[in-house]
Amino acid sequence: MINSREPSPVHPVNFAAPRSFGTALKSDLKETLFPDDPFHEFRNEPPSKRTKKAIQYFVPIFEWLPKYNLRFFKYDLLAGITIASLAIPQGISYAKLANLPPIIGLYSSFVPPLVYAVFGSSKHLAVGTVAACSLLISSIIGETVSPIDDPDLYLRLVFTATFFTGILQAAMGFLRLGIVVDFLSHSTITGFMGGTATIICLQQLKGVFGMKHFTTKTDVVSVLRAIISHRHEWRWESAVVGIIFLVFLQFTRYLKQKKPKLFWVSAIAPMVVVIIGCLFAYFAHAEKHGIQIVGDLKKGINPPSLKLLNFDPKYISAPIRAGLITAFVALAEGIAIGRSFAILTNEQVDGNKEMIAFGFMNLVGSFTSCYLTTGPFSKTAVNFNAGCKTAMANVVMAICMLFTLLFLAPLFSYTPLVALSAIIMSAMFGLIEYDKAYRLFKTDKYDFLICMVAFIGVAFISMDIGLMMSVGLAILRALLYVARPATCKLGSIPNSSLYRDIEQYPEANGIPGILVLQLGSPIYFPNCNYIRERILRWVRDEQASREADQGSDIEHILLELGGVTCIDITGVETLIEILKALEAKGIKVAIVNPRLEVMEKLIVTKFVDVIGKQNVFLSIDNAVDACRFNLKRLKQFQDA
Amino acid sequence: MINSREPSPVHPVNFAAPRSFGTALKSDLKETLFPDDPFHEFRNEPPSKRTKKAIQYFVPIFEWLPKYNLRFFKYDLLAGITIASLAIPQGISYAKLANLPPIIGLYSSFVPPLVYAVFGSSKHLAVGTVAACSLLISSIIGETVSPIDDPDLYLRLVFTATFFTGILQAAMGFLRLGIVVDFLSHSTITGFMGGTATIICLQQLKGVFGMKHFTTKTDVVSVLRAIISHRHEWRWESAVVGIIFLVFLQFTRYLKQKKPKLFWVSAIAPMVVVIIGCLFAYFAHAEKHGIQIVGDLKKGINPPSLKLLNFDPKYISAPIRAGLITAFVALAEGIAIGRSFAILTNEQVDGNKEMIAFGFMNLVGSFTSCYLTTGPFSKTAVNFNAGCKTAMANVVMAICMLFTLLFLAPLFSYTPLVALSAIIMSAMFGLIEYDKAYRLFKTDKYDFLICMVAFIGVAFISMDIGLMMSVGLAILRALLYVARPATCKLGSIPNSSLYRDIEQYPEANGIPGILVLQLGSPIYFPNCNYIRERILRWVRDEQASREADQGSDIEHILLELGGVTCIDITGVETLIEILKALEAKGIKVAIVNPRLEVMEKLIVTKFVDVIGKQNVFLSIDNAVDACRFNLKRLKQFQDA
Repeated sequence: MINSREPSPVHPVNFAAPRSFGTALKSDLKETLFPDDPFHEFRNEPPSKRTKKAIQYFVPIFEWLPKYNLRFFKYDLLAGITIASLAIPQGISYAKLANLPPIIGLYSSFVPPLVYAVFGSSKHLAVGTVAACSLLISSIIGETVSPIDDPDLYLRLVFTATFFTGILQAAMGFLRLGIVVDFLSHSTITGFMGGTATIICLQQLKGVFGMKHFTTKTDVVSVLRAIISHRHEWRWESAVVGIIFLVFLQFTRYLKQKKPKLFWVSAIAPMVVVIIGCLFAYFAHAEKHGIQIVGDLKKGINPPSLKLLNFDPKYISAPIRAGLITAFVALAEGIAIGRSFAILTNEQVDGNKEMIAFGFMNLVGSFTSCYLTTGPFSKTAVNFNAGCKTAMANVVMAICMLFTLLFLAPLFSYTPLVALSAIIMSAMFGLIEYDKAYRLFKTDKYDFLICMVAFIGVAFISMDIGLMMSVGLAILRALLYVARPATCKLGSIPNSSLYRDIEQYPEANGIPGILVLQLGSPIYFPNCNYIRERILRWVRDEQASREADQGSDIEHILLELGGVTCIDITGVETLIEILKALEAKGIKVAIVNPRLEVMEKLIVTKFVDVIGKQNVFLSIDNAVDACRFNLKRLKQFQDA
Repeated sequence: MINSREPSPVHPVNFAAPRSFGTALKSDLKETLFPDDPFHEFRNEPPSKRTKKAIQYFVPIFEWLPKYNLRFFKYDLLAGITIASLAIPQGISYAKLANLPPIIGLYSSFVPPLVYAVFGSSKHLAVGTVAACSLLISSIIGETVSPIDDPDLYLRLVFTATFFTGILQAAMGFLRLGIVVDFLSHSTITGFMGGTATIICLQQLKGVFGMKHFTTKTDVVSVLRAIISHRHEWRWESAVVGIIFLVFLQFTRYLKQKKPKLFWVSAIAPMVVVIIGCLFAYFAHAEKHGIQIVGDLKKGINPPSLKLLNFDPKYISAPIRAGLITAFVALAEGIAIGRSFAILTNEQVDGNKEMIAFGFMNLVGSFTSCYLTTGPFSKTAVNFNAGCKTAMANVVMAICMLFTLLFLAPLFSYTPLVALSAIIMSAMFGLIEYDKAYRLFKTDKYDFLICMVAFIGVAFISMDIGLMMSVGLAILRALLYVARPATCKLGSIPNSSLYRDIEQYPEANGIPGILVLQLGSPIYFPNCNYIRERILRWVRDEQASREADQGSDIEHILLELGGVTCIDITGVETLIEILKALEAKGIKVAIVNPRLEVMEKLIVTKFVDVIGKQNVFLSIDNAVDACRFNLKRLKQFQDA
């Protein structure tokens, strides 16, 4: 069973002096903060061109506007009008969801898209308010100040939260901390969105049933209890209208799925619902029949709100908390969406630059009576399908909103609340992704658990706690991974110089007298005890099985380090301990193929001197040959 | 420059059906919770023997006591008496440090060692109280209840904290959560111990100067301020005596370093200081000269304290917090020390079993008027040097303590406080490990930072915050590691089938038309964006450099996955995105050597079907050969 090939040529291992601390730090920082090498385009240009390119890099409008032409504009105009028709009903609806005056929702679709058009790097992203963050804001700020008892203070705190969101997003972008958002995994977002959609749908039952009293809590149990305990307020007229609207909206969605070309039908459907609702309310005097209307929408563009920001220490913790959490959620949604559409068209979106754009957008928004905006999925998809070419579509939308604010706003005051509820519910149905959850269940049970914790936490406890539990679980998994890197025993693949996991390739043979172990990465303080115990267990098991087979004893252990990208001091100390423990059992240790950073650390810590340079090999083949030679010599010596 | 060897024989890749969820979960749980396979000794035994072995496993005294003999006892007797002579002065000193009646310190060296002797698996560990935890308890409980104004309640809360420590330690042991303690890295412990030793030393200036009023805070600034602001209380007599004692103690330590055989001199030195101090205080009526004495030590063994445990919700948070934090610190110290002495004698200590022993020890302790005990370094080292053979040394120490408690305790009431301060300070000097910190600085700057954060946090903020900051930083590093796994470009080593990092082995050659990238592990949601951007950057850089050299364009990319131990859904989705992005650039992707768990996930998620089985290779060599064949065919086709 022995692999009887010729010994492979021996190639020397590189023991060059480690890089200096400065070089290593620079390289680490670059990988951590600038993995996409954002400045590569203008690093090697002459100074004048470099400045121009740098400005274009930080303010992308300077890049695309000079090249802009009428052909692009035709597409952008159409797309902009389409998303504006979506922005009006959504703006009013989500503002109601956030317990804000509906006009704030319209304001929020005017200024922020203009800011994004200047600083944003995605071509397809359409700016707007989102349901999840709207509810998140209302649930966090609502704990401190009631939107009904003190709407003025509540509004000020929402602007303050938006201000903090903007500051945090811009700061994270400048500090290149996009890495933080990466810790919101797809599974967390799927569960969070599903849970949020569920509770938002349930909350909309208030509007559908035309109820006047309700709970401010967001969890399923409180909401259901509120709906049932106030059942004397239910109005059948409202429910009938709501169900008709909902069926219509769902039908247009179904149509879009069947015939993707008809996407515009579902895109303008909410606007149609609002217009029909307004007409119905106006002519049928719906309010007298228990169908409430929005009421009171003033003409005029965004008033300044800089002076409304409230930093009173008494209330400050709520807007800070709301600002932080919504900043992450909004970034995760906005960046993920920008990226996924960029992949469709094979472009790249710089997450950190997007953060700066989002940050500016919300910062300026908080000064101009807007609340939190990001890149919502539905709007962006409509924008993309409508064929938008550049961020000009956002400008067109903003101009449409300007027109609306200046002339049309009062017309929308007749919008029935039940129409808004139907619009929100219909949007939410699309966010509960059963099939994705099922796929997670099929492919990765732990990811499914992370998703379900977010879903159940959001639905039954609260949105922020559900989100944090899920993120905590995901981080726990990442830590567990670091704490338990997989090791495996390698065997020789017949007729080759390859060594592979014998569990995976049962045809791989063990080598007499030698045990080859591949170590997982990293070798780090949280896993050092594990690695030591695991290696000793491999040796124990191997000795027991070879004893049972009456095979030869283990004389050499080869530790394959090719997959280990990192090792710390504790890791090196552990390797030395393993060395000593095995030497005490009469087993020699050699290491194979340490990578650059590992080798540096092994040299700096003098591990290489402890184990001896002759026991460091470039390939398993070389190491096995050397060990065989030793074993043969030993046998000759014993025979002699 | 092309490596013109014969094509290597192609070995098929294993596409076997993935293991069932149950099998994979069982294997994961085993690696996570039972990495050392603790039951291997009695798994294959007959039932009767298995029961016996299991009892011996859980209660180690049944294993060593039957084999015990007089020869062992000679050594253990000597070691036991030596550590008892250390236990008396240390017990009194550390109890004072915890603001407890000194007799509690003596009680704590009587019952817990007996419990440990039954359940503990380390032969060398000597049980006792420790300075860091004593101060930690006093600083946390002292925030809630003043030990001077309400000593009775304070004492009850300390017992309650000990109770929680015991519960937590035992529970962690039963649940096999030793993994949690692994997250306290050596660097954190070095910094924490150094910082603690610093503030303890400063606090002892109170005793050395014979001051009566002092601060309850532990940070350097408060302590220094307290010393200076109460300078009218300074007594020179006390200071002179203190310095004499300190010089004596330091001299014996110096002696031990020079002549390790004389370790017993430094071991009994504290006892000598206490006895001389007592005699001096008794005959010189020291109290009249400003030298305070301990006072009031009653005869008699530990009274029961079960009824003293206080679970009043008003105070409960302090003992719970103190219990939790000290549980971790005590475990980290105790287990690390047990392990390091076990390595010296080539034995193994089961961390989880030790936790159970520590837990029982503190649980029983909290019922018998003891406070927190663990395995202190100094005492264990003395025990080891004195030649102890089994846990019997702890029993001998307990019997000595019993004798002391029954007959001698009142004699120690004359111990001058200044003598205790000198003993504590001398012990603390040894815990500030400058050389270790310097070594960290030389070898790993980030580990040094973790260490310094613990040191400065403990010294200038508070012990628990310093500890948590340092642990947080260490975890952040682990997360950063997961978020930024190193990738590298591989080149072909001349005259071999090896492919290695071209940065590490500059002699390795690139392959025309093919780019080989080795991915780091794991491929996980926090690093998916990074991996995608990094790979696209490799391609961009490579295309630019090949263009500059007028070399051939990249037609194939090989992703070497041999070092990747784990991939999640987001990771697979990212690989698919990379596939699409590169295909759009006209580049074909192949993957090489996915390991067992990665392959399973790739099969379950149908990634293998997307990329095609013909694009999965067992070795880079095979993959390169296949790509070359493709390239050649392409060229022939173009030429034709």
